[in-house]
Amino acid sequence: MESEPTRVMVAVNESSIKGYPHASISSKKAFEWTLKKIVKSNTSGFKLLLLHAQVQDEDGSKEVVLIMNWEPGFDDMDSIYASPDDFRNMRERNKANGLHLLEFFVNKCHEIGVRCEAWIRKGDPTEVICHEVRRVRPDFLVVGSRGLGPFQKVFVGTVSEFCVKHAECPVIIIKRSAEESPQDPADD
Amino acid sequence: MESEPTRVMVAVNESSIKGYPHASISSKKAFEWTLKKIVKSNTSGFKLLLLHAQVQDEDGSKEVVLIMNWEPGFDDMDSIYASPDDFRNMRERNKANGLHLLEFFVNKCHEIGVRCEAWIRKGDPTEVICHEVRRVRPDFLVVGSRGLGPFQKVFVGTVSEFCVKHAECPVIIIKRSAEESPQDPADD
Repeated sequence: MESEPTRVMVAVNESSIKGYPHASISSKKAFEWTLKKIVKSNTSGFKLLLLHAQVQDEDGSKEVVLIMNWEPGFDDMDSIYASPDDFRNMRERNKANGLHLLEFFVNKCHEIGVRCEAWIRKGDPTEVICHEVRRVRPDFLVVGSRGLGPFQKVFVGTVSEFCVKHAECPVIIIKRSAEESPQDPADD
Repeated sequence: MESEPTRVMVAVNESSIKGYPHASISSKKAFEWTLKKIVKSNTSGFKLLLLHAQVQDEDGSKEVVLIMNWEPGFDDMDSIYASPDDFRNMRERNKANGLHLLEFFVNKCHEIGVRCEAWIRKGDPTEVICHEVRRVRPDFLVVGSRGLGPFQKVFVGTVSEFCVKHAECPVIIIKRSAEESPQDPADD
């Protein structure tokens, strides 16, 4: 009954406390949960689509700036693509850091032997995620959440709730556990 | 890296058009989606927990009325448990039909070779599902949805949205596709 691999999009972002290249607690948790509870030993049955939405530059560009692919059987990440315009800006601190953030997740996939594709897109995370879901049509989307109470939500917003309502695919929200939360629960 | 099987709760209900023992379009879809996209060929990596919330009788009883287990290696469902009080009422039409509804799903698990447990609990579906999540602690919950627009939702309510907000585990909502919907989208 094995057919096409299930394509799971995982939205990842940087830590709000430690900054790049560190992943946020909740996106790391969402990624690890996906591997442990869904992929398990069936590494050939899944492909992870790792999307990093990066806060937009002043120029308002929303282009895909970087794509990494990894397929089992290649020694390392086999390709890094970018448009000519993107290459020009590749060394900008922000983008380079976004690259290192994705490398963390791509390397984990590599260790385990699960196919992945990772890319950065600039813009508001809620819009970017919903747009990319429409574009790449994953089987489902995994989003981490800080698991804030209603009072805290008012101030920091919740990307995950927006995705559940608006993304055109099934969405699963993985909340941080209480012991994983930093002192200020709005940090991540 | 294979450890404990992932325990996936799937909430199932009867068709609002055809009635028992037919499953609703959306719960059948949620179940099939889980097998096709998550379990795949890794049948030993998962256990399905099939919960049928049955509209409450006048006596207000909320007891678990019936449990079916199936483990690979047994010729058929290996046990049917019920409390003495429940046995007394077992032949009531409603419960018997609930049993046949669950048998549909248990038999499918049997065919594929994935472990399952199925049970009926009486009460309001939203409360029952959230209560059972607290009690059995699945790794995640799959709920079907009719995918109604905001206007239709006002009249028929949405069990799935309630679960996303209140169930104490990750929840994934599987919507019916447009071509699977009956003429009146509130039917299921």
